Amino acid sequence: MKPVKVGLLGLGTVGTGVVRIVEGHQEDLQSQVGSPISISKILVKDRAKQRGVSVDSAKLTEDPWEIVRDPEIDIVIEVMGGIDSTKEYLLEALERGKHVVTANKDLMALHGQEILAKAAEKGCDVFYEASVAGGIPIIRTLIEGFSSDRITKIMGIVNGTTNYILTKMSQEGAAYADVLKEAQALGYAEADPTSDVEGLDAARKMAILSTLGFRANVALDDVDVKGISSVTQEDIRYARQLGYELKLLGIAERQDDYISVGVQPTMVKKSHPIAAVNGVFNAVYVYGEAVGETMFYGPGAGEMPTATSVVADLVAVAKNSKLGVNGRQATLAYKEKKLKTDEQIAAKYFLLLHVEDRAGVLAQIAQVFSQCEMSIESVMQPATPDRPGAELIITTHSTTKASLKAVLESFKSLSSIRTIKSVYRLEG
Amino acid sequence: MKPVKVGLLGLGTVGTGVVRIVEGHQEDLQSQVGSPISISKILVKDRAKQRGVSVDSAKLTEDPWEIVRDPEIDIVIEVMGGIDSTKEYLLEALERGKHVVTANKDLMALHGQEILAKAAEKGCDVFYEASVAGGIPIIRTLIEGFSSDRITKIMGIVNGTTNYILTKMSQEGAAYADVLKEAQALGYAEADPTSDVEGLDAARKMAILSTLGFRANVALDDVDVKGISSVTQEDIRYARQLGYELKLLGIAERQDDYISVGVQPTMVKKSHPIAAVNGVFNAVYVYGEAVGETMFYGPGAGEMPTATSVVADLVAVAKNSKLGVNGRQATLAYKEKKLKTDEQIAAKYFLLLHVEDRAGVLAQIAQVFSQCEMSIESVMQPATPDRPGAELIITTHSTTKASLKAVLESFKSLSSIRTIKSVYRLEG
Repeated sequence: MKPVKVGLLGLGTVGTGVVRIVEGHQEDLQSQVGSPISISKILVKDRAKQRGVSVDSAKLTEDPWEIVRDPEIDIVIEVMGGIDSTKEYLLEALERGKHVVTANKDLMALHGQEILAKAAEKGCDVFYEASVAGGIPIIRTLIEGFSSDRITKIMGIVNGTTNYILTKMSQEGAAYADVLKEAQALGYAEADPTSDVEGLDAARKMAILSTLGFRANVALDDVDVKGISSVTQEDIRYARQLGYELKLLGIAERQDDYISVGVQPTMVKKSHPIAAVNGVFNAVYVYGEAVGETMFYGPGAGEMPTATSVVADLVAVAKNSKLGVNGRQATLAYKEKKLKTDEQIAAKYFLLLHVEDRAGVLAQIAQVFSQCEMSIESVMQPATPDRPGAELIITTHSTTKASLKAVLESFKSLSSIRTIKSVYRLEG
Repeated sequence: MKPVKVGLLGLGTVGTGVVRIVEGHQEDLQSQVGSPISISKILVKDRAKQRGVSVDSAKLTEDPWEIVRDPEIDIVIEVMGGIDSTKEYLLEALERGKHVVTANKDLMALHGQEILAKAAEKGCDVFYEASVAGGIPIIRTLIEGFSSDRITKIMGIVNGTTNYILTKMSQEGAAYADVLKEAQALGYAEADPTSDVEGLDAARKMAILSTLGFRANVALDDVDVKGISSVTQEDIRYARQLGYELKLLGIAERQDDYISVGVQPTMVKKSHPIAAVNGVFNAVYVYGEAVGETMFYGPGAGEMPTATSVVADLVAVAKNSKLGVNGRQATLAYKEKKLKTDEQIAAKYFLLLHVEDRAGVLAQIAQVFSQCEMSIESVMQPATPDRPGAELIITTHSTTKASLKAVLESFKSLSSIRTIKSVYRLEG
């Protein structure tokens, strides 16, 4: 049997996992695909470096073109990361009729449509299960599992670093800065944590998920992003007192054909299944008109979980090749994208205000809410004997984002409000 | 464009949902499949009956053979239930080159291999996503999502009726018989609840899941079954005191190539994600060597969730037809099945004993455990001032089923033990 020949771009954490699985599970893979799978060339930065897995050094190359232009190679697996030059390599591979499996969320969020269009033109497969939520097969679930339904909401904990930090802050009462340092020491957060903690990584994943779920091309710029760096212990404490957990949540919603996608720290009711997702785990909650509530839970990153998804894609592509049906997974968006305006985005909110401690303040604030057509659900004044002024916790009924913005704007000219300490969306 | 012609066997709850989705989502389905989907004939018991959905009465027939032998029909959807005669209809449809989508767990658990073999022989698809865990796309996840991994454990809450009953018993302190009556009144349990409460329904689903997950033909007879009808309020209370929830759990395990599959009421540690699955919801927890812990959560039954899965299968089959690649989803088991012996099945257990209240009893019991090579983790004697004798709660370290059986056998000849009140497996 002629083996399926694979070129591997990258031999870092995930690449090493891919080699381990392809070699360790060869017999299992072969009985599924019908022929052996052989990794014939591997791109590395430095051929001389010691590896965590034993590979024939003759397979290693430092030249990506040697792989993407090799006529013997059927499938290119990209686990090297990077955007611009990586895109060039993959386009070249597709141009030459090679199929692509990639774990690169940055690339797919930014240039997914261009890459998928090239694949469609050449009749090639591009699979990218590992780009979102590591070991959870959420992409094939959205494409195939819910093909018959109309998905109206996708909520995701799709960044393990921030979920680890928020879980630790919630369970141990630790401060943000301290937990971040600990996460960095454990390798859960990078030296420059910006992409994770500011929500950019989650935003890329939500762009991919909402494009698939809503079948409309959601770009990274369409995602409204706020990170967790300003989340305080106080916020988390108040959230728990009200029966919520604070999570960095990606929320994509559709009403008729209007879409909104955002990533922000959100207070999630404890009874909601996503509120119990802790530590570095990921979960994607999908609401479909017909199916109702579903949730998919698993590891969001890591060598072996991510490699599992990469190799599952490899199996799917190799099977398609055997059958001569590559390029069928045309996941190009086919709906016109219409973004919701602030008047169309509705949610409930939590506000924490630091106000003057005198009579009439609450009346003034209630007046502002009323003028902006925002309806208050509850007001609480927690005891803060050690601080001057008073604190007010306000939760609202469902309201538009436009009303929220108007309220916050009006608060600026209200002398009785010293600071708007926190504003969070409420879910569940 | 020539439409894909579908024959529908059954117009009950799920069949009605299928008609609703195929008609309501026609545009969406058509853009995925590339041609319209038309339900051209529907098998009903009584053509004159009023329906929950409007269908052209000319499409209705009371003769199944009229559908499975109609040369115009491409795909047969079976949502009528039943085993022997239903099998004949589906085999006839396959014989004539029609593809099959079925929601029939009983049929697939009992005759899945025969039906799949016929499909393979004829190059036809048989898809059965809806047969397990209604709206959760767990079957395609096991077949495709984890194709690269070695699954070692599958745990499922795959029966909504029993999960509803146990949840109510746990949350409201109600007795089994009362909750069962309530579930029957609400339509969550059938008039004859045996198949659900005695675990048979869950056993059928576990046979299907373990066959797929372990790629070995697990028959219904291989599943060790115990239902929930003897679960008491006291058991649930003690479970909660120890930090567990009592769930009817299907547990399939593999070690090397040895398999065990069972369904039994199990105490699940509250920190385990499956412990929080409440009410009629289903969840399947999958542990893979590479991927680690994952869980898939959603509605286990109901008109629209189940119909969603049926129509997702219909889309997949219709796409395959367009591409001329039906029959590729050969999910026939390819591994020899080896069942674990009682000496190989290991678990932790909870025992509740009613014993004589006198000195030396615990020593006697400990002696039995020691002789049977079963190691005690903890012993508690809860206060039971209103009853004669004493109660002992014993939890064990991981032990073989053979040891457990030996202990229980020895207890019979121990005069100090009045009753073995309960024995549960512990998980998590």
